[in-house]
Amino acid sequence: MAARDTSDVRCSIARSLEVLGERWTLLVIREAFRGRSRFAEFRDALGVAPDVLSARLKTLVEAGVLERRAYREPGERERSSYHLTESGRELRLVLGALNQWGDRYRPSGHGPASILQTVDGAPARVTFVDPTDSPRPVEDIVTVPGPGARR
Amino acid sequence: MAARDTSDVRCSIARSLEVLGERWTLLVIREAFRGRSRFAEFRDALGVAPDVLSARLKTLVEAGVLERRAYREPGERERSSYHLTESGRELRLVLGALNQWGDRYRPSGHGPASILQTVDGAPARVTFVDPTDSPRPVEDIVTVPGPGARR
Repeated sequence: MAARDTSDVRCSIARSLEVLGERWTLLVIREAFRGRSRFAEFRDALGVAPDVLSARLKTLVEAGVLERRAYREPGERERSSYHLTESGRELRLVLGALNQWGDRYRPSGHGPASILQTVDGAPARVTFVDPTDSPRPVEDIVTVPGPGARR
Repeated sequence: MAARDTSDVRCSIARSLEVLGERWTLLVIREAFRGRSRFAEFRDALGVAPDVLSARLKTLVEAGVLERRAYREPGERERSSYHLTESGRELRLVLGALNQWGDRYRPSGHGPASILQTVDGAPARVTFVDPTDSPRPVEDIVTVPGPGARR
Protein backbone atom coordinates (compact mmCIF):
# COMPACT_ATOMS: atom_id res chain seq x y z
CA MET A 1 0.00 0.00 0.00
CA ALA A 2 3.06 2.28 -0.14
CA ALA A 3 1.86 4.05 -3.26
CA ARG A 4 -1.30 5.14 -1.53
CA ASP A 5 0.44 7.34 1.00
CA THR A 6 3.50 8.55 -0.84
CA SER A 7 4.22 8.60 -4.54
CA ASP A 8 0.67 8.85 -5.75
CA VAL A 9 -0.60 11.45 -3.38
CA ARG A 10 -0.49 14.32 -5.88
CA CYS A 11 -2.63 12.56 -8.46
CA SER A 12 -6.25 13.61 -8.24
CA ILE A 13 -7.47 10.25 -9.47
CA ALA A 14 -5.59 8.48 -6.68
CA ARG A 15 -6.74 11.06 -4.15
CA SER A 16 -10.35 10.68 -5.26
CA LEU A 17 -10.10 6.92 -5.02
CA GLU A 18 -8.86 7.19 -1.44
CA VAL A 19 -12.45 8.21 -0.74
CA LEU A 20 -14.34 6.61 -3.62
CA GLY A 21 -12.33 3.58 -4.68
CA GLU A 22 -14.64 1.03 -3.28
CA ARG A 23 -17.80 -0.39 -4.74
CA TRP A 24 -20.13 0.33 -1.85
CA THR A 25 -18.99 3.92 -1.53
CA LEU A 26 -20.22 4.92 -4.96
CA LEU A 27 -23.41 2.91 -4.51
CA VAL A 28 -24.10 4.79 -1.26
CA ILE A 29 -23.72 8.02 -3.23
CA ARG A 30 -26.01 6.67 -5.95
CA GLU A 31 -28.65 6.01 -3.29
CA ALA A 32 -28.17 9.50 -1.85
CA PHE A 33 -28.96 10.89 -5.31
CA ARG A 34 -32.12 8.79 -5.22
CA GLY A 35 -33.16 10.66 -2.09
CA ARG A 36 -32.18 8.19 0.59
CA SER A 37 -30.65 9.68 3.72
CA ARG A 38 -31.20 7.29 6.63
CA PHE A 39 -29.03 4.37 7.65
CA ALA A 40 -31.87 1.86 7.29
CA GLU A 41 -32.73 3.23 3.84
CA PHE A 42 -29.17 2.75 2.57
CA ARG A 43 -28.94 -0.67 4.20
CA ASP A 44 -32.23 -1.90 2.75
CA ALA A 45 -31.57 -0.49 -0.72
CA LEU A 46 -28.08 -1.96 -0.99
CA GLY A 47 -28.21 -5.13 1.10
CA VAL A 48 -24.87 -4.12 2.55
CA ALA A 49 -23.65 -5.32 5.96
CA PRO A 50 -24.29 -2.71 8.67
CA ASP A 51 -20.63 -2.51 9.74
CA VAL A 52 -19.49 -1.92 6.15
CA LEU A 53 -22.19 0.73 5.68
CA SER A 54 -21.19 2.49 8.91
CA ALA A 55 -17.57 2.58 7.82
CA ARG A 56 -18.43 3.94 4.37
CA LEU A 57 -20.74 6.65 5.75
CA LYS A 58 -18.02 7.69 8.20
CA THR A 59 -15.43 7.97 5.40
CA LEU A 60 -17.82 10.00 3.26
CA VAL A 61 -18.66 12.38 6.11
CA GLU A 62 -14.96 12.84 6.93
CA ALA A 63 -14.22 13.55 3.28
CA GLY A 64 -17.00 16.16 3.14
CA VAL A 65 -19.05 14.27 0.54
CA LEU A 66 -21.96 13.68 2.91
CA GLU A 67 -23.01 15.75 5.88
CA ARG A 68 -24.61 14.30 8.96
CA ARG A 69 -27.80 15.79 10.40
CA ALA A 70 -29.68 14.78 13.51
CA TYR A 71 -33.33 13.76 13.39
CA ARG A 72 -35.69 12.21 15.90
CA GLU A 73 -38.87 10.28 15.25
CA PRO A 74 -41.59 10.65 17.93
CA GLY A 75 -40.76 8.43 20.89
CA GLU A 76 -37.40 7.32 19.51
CA ARG A 77 -33.78 8.26 20.17
CA GLU A 78 -31.99 10.83 18.08
CA ARG A 79 -30.51 9.40 14.91
CA SER A 80 -28.33 10.68 12.06
CA SER A 81 -29.27 11.21 8.47
CA TYR A 82 -26.77 11.73 5.64
CA HIS A 83 -27.07 14.34 2.91
CA LEU A 84 -24.97 15.19 -0.13
CA THR A 85 -22.81 18.31 0.20
CA GLU A 86 -21.81 20.45 -2.78
CA SER A 87 -18.80 18.15 -3.27
CA GLY A 88 -21.13 15.15 -3.15
CA ARG A 89 -23.55 16.67 -5.63
CA GLU A 90 -20.67 17.24 -8.06
CA LEU A 91 -20.11 13.47 -8.06
CA ARG A 92 -23.15 13.18 -10.29
CA LEU A 93 -20.72 13.70 -13.14
CA VAL A 94 -18.59 10.72 -12.03
CA LEU A 95 -21.70 8.56 -11.59
CA GLY A 96 -23.03 9.82 -14.93
CA ALA A 97 -19.79 8.80 -16.67
CA LEU A 98 -19.96 5.36 -15.01
CA ASN A 99 -23.63 4.98 -15.91
CA GLN A 100 -23.00 5.85 -19.54
CA TRP A 101 -19.99 3.53 -19.81
CA GLY A 102 -21.90 0.68 -18.17
CA ASP A 103 -24.91 1.13 -20.46
CA ARG A 104 -22.62 0.74 -23.43
CA TYR A 105 -20.01 -1.79 -22.29
CA ARG A 106 -21.70 -3.70 -19.48
CA PRO A 107 -25.32 -3.90 -20.71
CA SER A 108 -27.67 -5.98 -18.60
CA GLY A 109 -29.81 -7.06 -21.54
CA HIS A 110 -32.84 -5.28 -20.07
CA GLY A 111 -32.04 -1.77 -21.29
CA PRO A 112 -30.76 1.02 -19.06
CA ALA A 113 -31.98 0.92 -15.46
CA SER A 114 -31.69 4.67 -15.22
CA ILE A 115 -31.55 7.42 -17.79
CA LEU A 116 -29.78 10.76 -17.52
CA GLN A 117 -32.00 13.72 -18.30
CA THR A 118 -31.98 17.46 -17.93
CA VAL A 119 -34.52 18.89 -15.49
CA ASP A 120 -36.62 19.84 -18.52
CA GLY A 121 -36.80 16.19 -19.62
CA ALA A 122 -34.30 16.10 -22.49
CA PRO A 123 -31.70 13.34 -22.74
CA ALA A 124 -28.32 14.28 -21.23
CA ARG A 125 -24.90 12.76 -21.69
CA VAL A 126 -21.41 13.18 -20.27
CA THR A 127 -18.65 14.34 -22.59
CA PHE A 128 -15.38 16.20 -22.79
CA VAL A 129 -15.66 19.76 -24.07
CA ASP A 130 -12.98 22.18 -25.25
CA PRO A 131 -12.75 25.90 -24.26
CA THR A 132 -15.44 26.81 -26.81
CA ASP A 133 -17.73 24.26 -25.09
CA SER A 134 -17.71 22.03 -28.17
CA PRO A 135 -17.97 18.32 -27.33
CA ARG A 136 -14.83 16.30 -28.11
CA PRO A 137 -14.52 12.50 -28.36
CA VAL A 138 -12.19 10.71 -25.97
CA GLU A 139 -9.64 10.15 -28.76
CA ASP A 140 -9.15 13.92 -28.88
CA ILE A 141 -8.17 14.10 -25.21
CA VAL A 142 -4.73 13.74 -23.64
CA THR A 143 -3.38 14.34 -20.15
CA VAL A 144 -0.21 16.32 -19.62
CA PRO A 145 1.80 16.75 -16.39
CA GLY A 146 0.69 19.72 -14.29
CA PRO A 147 2.47 21.71 -11.54
CA GLY A 148 1.74 19.00 -8.98
CA ALA A 149 3.39 16.24 -11.03
CA ARG A 150 6.42 14.47 -9.60
CA ARG A 151 9.69 15.63 -11.14
CA MET B 1 -23.03 -9.44 -1.10
CA ALA B 2 -26.55 -10.38 -2.18
CA ALA B 3 -27.13 -7.04 -3.85
CA ARG B 4 -24.21 -7.61 -6.17
CA ASP B 5 -25.65 -10.62 -7.89
CA THR B 6 -29.37 -10.01 -7.77
CA SER B 7 -31.25 -6.79 -7.17
CA ASP B 8 -28.61 -4.39 -8.46
CA VAL B 9 -27.65 -6.25 -11.56
CA ARG B 10 -29.59 -4.00 -13.93
CA CYS B 11 -27.96 -0.79 -12.75
CA SER B 12 -25.10 0.27 -15.00
CA ILE B 13 -23.28 1.93 -12.15
CA ALA B 14 -23.34 -1.30 -10.14
CA ARG B 15 -22.38 -3.32 -13.21
CA SER B 16 -19.48 -0.99 -13.97
CA LEU B 17 -18.29 -1.20 -10.39
CA GLU B 18 -18.25 -5.00 -10.62
CA VAL B 19 -15.24 -4.40 -12.85
CA LEU B 20 -13.99 -1.01 -11.71
CA GLY B 21 -15.05 -0.64 -8.09
CA GLU B 22 -11.65 -1.09 -6.63
CA ARG B 23 -8.87 1.42 -6.22
CA TRP B 24 -6.12 -0.48 -8.03
CA THR B 25 -8.29 -1.24 -11.00
CA LEU B 26 -8.75 2.39 -11.98
CA LEU B 27 -5.09 3.14 -11.24
CA VAL B 28 -4.05 0.31 -13.58
CA ILE B 29 -6.20 1.94 -16.26
CA ARG B 30 -4.66 5.34 -15.49
CA GLU B 31 -1.20 3.80 -16.05
CA ALA B 32 -2.38 2.20 -19.30
CA PHE B 33 -3.37 5.68 -20.51
CA ARG B 34 0.17 6.77 -19.63
CA GLY B 35 1.47 4.17 -22.06
CA ARG B 36 2.40 1.37 -19.69
CA SER B 37 1.61 -2.13 -20.90
CA ARG B 38 3.92 -4.61 -19.16
CA PHE B 39 3.42 -6.26 -15.81
CA ALA B 40 6.67 -4.86 -14.39
CA GLU B 41 5.75 -1.37 -15.59
CA PHE B 42 2.39 -1.43 -13.81
CA ARG B 43 3.96 -2.96 -10.70
CA ASP B 44 6.78 -0.41 -10.51
CA ALA B 45 4.51 2.57 -11.24
CA LEU B 46 1.91 1.61 -8.65
CA GLY B 47 3.86 -0.22 -5.96
CA VAL B 48 1.08 -2.80 -5.92
CA ALA B 49 1.60 -6.39 -4.75
CA PRO B 50 2.14 -8.75 -7.71
CA ASP B 51 -0.73 -11.06 -6.76
CA VAL B 52 -3.15 -8.13 -6.54
CA LEU B 53 -1.91 -6.77 -9.87
CA SER B 54 -2.30 -10.20 -11.52
CA ALA B 55 -5.86 -10.46 -10.26
CA ARG B 56 -6.78 -6.96 -11.46
CA LEU B 57 -5.26 -7.49 -14.91
CA LYS B 58 -7.16 -10.77 -15.23
CA THR B 59 -10.45 -9.09 -14.32
CA LEU B 60 -9.84 -6.28 -16.80
CA VAL B 61 -8.99 -8.70 -19.61
CA GLU B 62 -12.08 -10.80 -18.87
CA ALA B 63 -14.22 -7.65 -18.89
CA GLY B 64 -12.79 -6.59 -22.25
CA VAL B 65 -11.22 -3.39 -20.91
CA LEU B 66 -7.68 -4.56 -21.59
CA GLU B 67 -6.46 -7.01 -24.20
CA ARG B 68 -3.52 -9.29 -23.73
CA ARG B 69 -0.79 -9.52 -26.37
CA ALA B 70 2.28 -11.74 -26.39
CA TYR B 71 5.77 -10.33 -26.66
CA ARG B 72 9.23 -11.80 -26.29
CA GLU B 73 12.48 -10.01 -25.48
CA PRO B 74 15.63 -11.58 -27.04
CA GLY B 75 16.65 -14.62 -25.01
CA GLU B 76 13.66 -14.47 -22.69
CA ARG B 77 10.41 -16.39 -22.42
CA GLU B 78 7.22 -15.11 -23.99
CA ARG B 79 5.37 -12.63 -21.78
CA SER B 80 2.06 -10.78 -21.94
CA SER B 81 1.47 -7.08 -22.36
CA TYR B 82 -1.85 -5.36 -21.72
CA HIS B 83 -3.45 -2.76 -23.95
CA LEU B 84 -6.61 -0.68 -23.71
CA THR B 85 -9.48 -1.83 -25.92
CA GLU B 86 -12.15 0.55 -27.25
CA SER B 87 -14.10 0.00 -24.04
CA GLY B 88 -10.97 0.77 -22.04
CA ARG B 89 -10.24 3.92 -24.01
CA GLU B 90 -13.78 5.15 -23.32
CA LEU B 91 -12.94 5.04 -19.61
CA ARG B 92 -10.94 8.21 -20.12
CA LEU B 93 -14.21 10.01 -19.48
CA VAL B 94 -14.63 8.28 -16.10
CA LEU B 95 -11.00 9.02 -15.18
CA GLY B 96 -11.43 12.59 -16.45
CA ALA B 97 -14.47 13.10 -14.21
CA LEU B 98 -12.54 11.68 -11.23
CA ASN B 99 -9.52 13.83 -12.03
CA GLN B 100 -11.61 16.99 -12.24
CA TRP B 101 -13.50 16.21 -9.03
CA GLY B 102 -10.26 15.44 -7.18
CA ASP B 103 -8.58 18.64 -8.38
CA ARG B 104 -11.45 20.60 -6.92
CA TYR B 105 -12.45 18.67 -3.81
CA ARG B 106 -9.33 16.67 -2.89
CA PRO B 107 -6.52 19.13 -3.78
CA SER B 108 -3.01 18.03 -2.87
CA GLY B 109 -1.77 21.58 -2.29
CA HIS B 110 0.73 21.23 -5.13
CA GLY B 111 -1.62 22.02 -8.01
CA PRO B 112 -2.98 19.41 -10.43
CA ALA B 113 -0.66 16.48 -11.12
CA SER B 114 -2.17 16.07 -14.56
CA ILE B 115 -4.14 18.37 -16.79
CA LEU B 116 -6.77 17.39 -19.35
CA GLN B 117 -6.17 18.85 -22.79
CA THR B 118 -7.39 18.42 -26.31
CA VAL B 119 -4.85 17.02 -28.77
CA ASP B 120 -4.39 20.58 -30.03
CA GLY B 121 -3.31 21.76 -26.57
CA ALA B 122 -6.44 23.55 -25.35
CA PRO B 123 -7.81 22.90 -21.85
CA ALA B 124 -10.56 20.28 -21.74
CA ARG B 125 -13.15 19.51 -19.09
CA VAL B 126 -15.86 16.93 -18.47
CA THR B 127 -19.46 18.10 -18.35
CA PHE B 128 -23.04 17.08 -18.95
CA VAL B 129 -24.50 18.29 -22.24
CA ASP B 130 -28.08 18.40 -23.46
CA PRO B 131 -29.29 17.32 -26.95
CA THR B 132 -28.13 20.64 -28.43
CA ASP B 133 -24.65 19.89 -27.02
CA SER B 134 -24.92 22.81 -24.61
CA PRO B 135 -23.08 22.18 -21.31
CA ARG B 136 -25.36 21.84 -18.27
CA PRO B 137 -24.37 22.05 -14.60
CA VAL B 138 -24.94 19.02 -12.40
CA GLU B 139 -27.90 20.74 -10.69
CA ASP B 140 -29.72 20.59 -14.05
CA ILE B 141 -29.38 16.81 -14.28
CA VAL B 142 -31.71 14.13 -12.93
CA THR B 143 -31.91 10.37 -13.42
CA VAL B 144 -35.20 8.71 -14.24
CA PRO B 145 -36.00 4.96 -14.32
CA GLY B 146 -35.39 3.32 -17.69
CA PRO B 147 -36.71 0.09 -19.24
CA GLY B 148 -34.22 -2.00 -17.23
CA ALA B 149 -35.38 -0.61 -13.87
CA ARG B 150 -36.91 -2.99 -11.37
CA ARG B 151 -40.69 -2.78 -11.16
